[in-house]
Amino acid sequence: MRWPLPDWLKTYRLRHLPEDTTAALAVSLVLVPQGLAYAILAGLPPQAGLYAALLPLIAYSLLGSSRALSVGPVAIIALMTASALDGIAVPGSAEYVTAAIALALLAGVMLLLFGLLRLGAMAQFLSHPVISGFISGAALSIAIGQLPPPLGIELEGDTALQLLGDLLTLSWGFVASPAATFPPPISLTATVGLGTLLLFWLTRRYLASCLTILGVSGSRASLISKLVPTAAVLGSALAVSLFDWEDRMAVVGALPAGLPALVWPTLDLPLLRTLALPALMISLVIFVESIAIAQSFALRQRTRIDSNAELRGLGVANIASAVCGGFPVAGGFTRTTVNVDGGARTPLASILAAFFVALILLFATGVFHTLPMAVLAATVMAAVIQLVDLKSLRYNWRYDRAEGMAQLGTLLGVLIAGVEVGIAIGITLSLATLIWRASRPHMAVIGRIPETEHFRNVERFQVEVRPELLMLRIDENLFFGNAEAVEKRTLHLLEKQPEARHLVLVLSSVSSIDATALEMLELLNEQLKERGQRLHLAEVKGPVLAQLETRDFPTRLSGQLHLSANAAFETLTG
Amino acid sequence: MRWPLPDWLKTYRLRHLPEDTTAALAVSLVLVPQGLAYAILAGLPPQAGLYAALLPLIAYSLLGSSRALSVGPVAIIALMTASALDGIAVPGSAEYVTAAIALALLAGVMLLLFGLLRLGAMAQFLSHPVISGFISGAALSIAIGQLPPPLGIELEGDTALQLLGDLLTLSWGFVASPAATFPPPISLTATVGLGTLLLFWLTRRYLASCLTILGVSGSRASLISKLVPTAAVLGSALAVSLFDWEDRMAVVGALPAGLPALVWPTLDLPLLRTLALPALMISLVIFVESIAIAQSFALRQRTRIDSNAELRGLGVANIASAVCGGFPVAGGFTRTTVNVDGGARTPLASILAAFFVALILLFATGVFHTLPMAVLAATVMAAVIQLVDLKSLRYNWRYDRAEGMAQLGTLLGVLIAGVEVGIAIGITLSLATLIWRASRPHMAVIGRIPETEHFRNVERFQVEVRPELLMLRIDENLFFGNAEAVEKRTLHLLEKQPEARHLVLVLSSVSSIDATALEMLELLNEQLKERGQRLHLAEVKGPVLAQLETRDFPTRLSGQLHLSANAAFETLTG
Repeated sequence: MRWPLPDWLKTYRLRHLPEDTTAALAVSLVLVPQGLAYAILAGLPPQAGLYAALLPLIAYSLLGSSRALSVGPVAIIALMTASALDGIAVPGSAEYVTAAIALALLAGVMLLLFGLLRLGAMAQFLSHPVISGFISGAALSIAIGQLPPPLGIELEGDTALQLLGDLLTLSWGFVASPAATFPPPISLTATVGLGTLLLFWLTRRYLASCLTILGVSGSRASLISKLVPTAAVLGSALAVSLFDWEDRMAVVGALPAGLPALVWPTLDLPLLRTLALPALMISLVIFVESIAIAQSFALRQRTRIDSNAELRGLGVANIASAVCGGFPVAGGFTRTTVNVDGGARTPLASILAAFFVALILLFATGVFHTLPMAVLAATVMAAVIQLVDLKSLRYNWRYDRAEGMAQLGTLLGVLIAGVEVGIAIGITLSLATLIWRASRPHMAVIGRIPETEHFRNVERFQVEVRPELLMLRIDENLFFGNAEAVEKRTLHLLEKQPEARHLVLVLSSVSSIDATALEMLELLNEQLKERGQRLHLAEVKGPVLAQLETRDFPTRLSGQLHLSANAAFETLTG
Repeated sequence: MRWPLPDWLKTYRLRHLPEDTTAALAVSLVLVPQGLAYAILAGLPPQAGLYAALLPLIAYSLLGSSRALSVGPVAIIALMTASALDGIAVPGSAEYVTAAIALALLAGVMLLLFGLLRLGAMAQFLSHPVISGFISGAALSIAIGQLPPPLGIELEGDTALQLLGDLLTLSWGFVASPAATFPPPISLTATVGLGTLLLFWLTRRYLASCLTILGVSGSRASLISKLVPTAAVLGSALAVSLFDWEDRMAVVGALPAGLPALVWPTLDLPLLRTLALPALMISLVIFVESIAIAQSFALRQRTRIDSNAELRGLGVANIASAVCGGFPVAGGFTRTTVNVDGGARTPLASILAAFFVALILLFATGVFHTLPMAVLAATVMAAVIQLVDLKSLRYNWRYDRAEGMAQLGTLLGVLIAGVEVGIAIGITLSLATLIWRASRPHMAVIGRIPETEHFRNVERFQVEVRPELLMLRIDENLFFGNAEAVEKRTLHLLEKQPEARHLVLVLSSVSSIDATALEMLELLNEQLKERGQRLHLAEVKGPVLAQLETRDFPTRLSGQLHLSANAAFETLTG
């Protein structure tokens, strides 16, 4: 750990300053509309999204290990925040803001703690198909949830499924009611909203390639096309202001000017307890999402990511977000791309981006007063729709049906039951595929290759066997996931060889036996003893033997320990 | 699946009827006070506990695979029910009852579904240490939560930790306040409550051995001592009624007489969605607890448990509980012991026990009117305190520090943050120990034993190696839990051998590669290609190769596939 000063700062070269400043400007231009939109998505006042874009960026640049990652409000975490706070307070109220701050604090403390405990391997908790299913599901939910403002309609319902249901009911209403004029009148809101969506689609599809044809470099073209939403936001705010459309559509409204007052987050214990489980899920998603982005950029830039430093950086960033009145933050994909394409050389770019956001808070909040909600919703849709990855679902389905089902299950879980149940389903399905695989452990009945000391699978080799002896090689580590399957398989094989007096488990491939598997072995030992059969172990590795001895298992064994399969064979048939 | 008639019923012999009837009578005597107490624990009207002891018993006997298991209200599931419904409705209200019914329905449908999908391996989701930690923590929470009635005090607070804090504050009040008389006045409630606890402790400790000395058989002595709580319940109700103590202590009060009306459970979607996650956790605990009890008795009786039949039986039992106005049910340890000690020969005993409970509902609810709450609480404490197993904590801690910590973490999680967070912590810690172990996969750099075709670990054998060639044998299946660790380790080894042009992964021990691990291999392939190094695979098993080919990985490989380690060695060193 290098708390005092990060390496990049100690060796900072002034010639990188112009590039870092350009990147910072570009990032802040993307960050401001995203911040406003994601705060609204989280059920918070829009300025909370800008507050969450101040200290967290600085904290992460000083502590994180990625040179590229741009931390701040992100869509999926905003959705999870809204879901965690649902029912705890009225969205937009002071209690709701307090609860969001408490959530950021909790997630931050958890992440920091995991980092200090060096639990970076936690990134491996979820399989990639499950993560991909979760992100696609959450992104689809957000996209569907953003439909009402650009369409100029209102929907109720929490989950994507309910919203779609409402939408269908509404559409059916248009079709079924003969009184309704057809085509239905398009409101100004819908015109602006759908126009913005069309603009985004066209620019995403064609702008970068048009620019490249005009001779603009690839990364610059990508950067410009990523700034289109910001241009749309500013243009629409200007248009509303010029044409006095404020009464004809929902706008963001007045934002308080100035920097946020630093707050000491509440330590209301019942509230913290209620938020503990959602905070744990949110911290897991923050970590998994951020490290995936950080790693993909590190690969391009040939740098290394230290997962424990990431945990500490993200943890302190979230605590910092709580202190300046924000909500949980994570690394964002679009902003990180803008940061890199904008030419950022060091994490100073993030500090400068926070500085630009602070300037906007101090002097330019008035600009957003007339920003139409429909345009903001369109920017969110444009940002999240690229996170939906159905191709990987097809890929994984073909590669391995079980994993494809886990991915689909997580995706549908998020859409049908919401984001928290979705992540619970994801963890469960990650574990389930693991357990399902473990429940078919590789085991082989072995015999001796005549006139050698080698033992091989009886199904594949011509080997010597004895009716009174069953020799079984277990090819997996024994743990709670396969203990029962190993026991069942063993008893089944013993039933097929009723004259067996001795069972020898050959543990040459077993490098660990957990407590659950040991209990299974103890029960197996007892069961065999009652039937007058003996359990032997052969080729037990040193560390495994040491562990078994802490429970005196070898002395309670009805049979013996044998150094090798051959020694067991000689002793028991001799 | 044998839906029409279970085997035991088709082959039922009338000579078993007297034994089954005796067992049923004993079970129902234990079941009635437990049912009342656990319903109160769940926040429901006491009669709900009797309703949950009707149809579920019959449903399980017809569908489950255990001949011994007695299904019905159990303490831990009652606690989880209370926790799941906390904040959804006011305990005791009609909405609360409806929500409890919905919870039983959901848990039942989930269990049935898991059973029909043959997901019996789900019992292996949680390691034994984590299950033990969860049960001990929940039992301690319940015991602490039952303290107020026998002590004649009132406490607020949800978790065991808060209750203990309140208790300390209260005790401190007695000590610190000079005005309080000392010793504090003992109320009649406290006398009865503490007296009952003392009675239970004495009988548990000494009754069975006294009876054995008097010549009573072991199982009969155990049975009699298990009926003491019922005797205490009846005796105390009689005493209160005789001495007119009803105004001096809290009593159960009037119960509605008669069988419950069958209800069609609500299909209120938002309610079901809110309850989905708790129901998933509850169904997991129902299954894990019940199957553990069923298996321990099956071992004694030399019968077999079919985990999928258990899932179906428990699922239909819970749906049945919902239909007759109960709450989630599971197999209970005490009642199963009473059933076996009482001489039950077939599951008919459970059907008869339900019949006796029905008789009590029809004709004898008046008996419980004057039953003191303090005595009921004492019976709960006596029942749950035997579930606390701290010995296994010490055992597992010594056997494997990581598993001991998982057990302790789950236990403390339940005590501090409650039962739902506790089970989430448990699942996470089960997975965490697994991932932690997987993050240190067994891998060996190998070389050729001179003048043979055998390859062995360079650290243990004198073998031939070549500077341009790194041969690495991976001794574990590749999956999301160890993919990153394998990649890190491989890159680290390559850095130590910078002149290596070829990396050969020898996959002789790898029998599966999941999607996450494949992505790792693809990235590794890319990284090596950029550095001018080649990735080769050797000894790839047939099914693994077939899987890799669905993604065209072999054609994208920078190196080649080799049949054996020796073939790779020969080809690449020429």
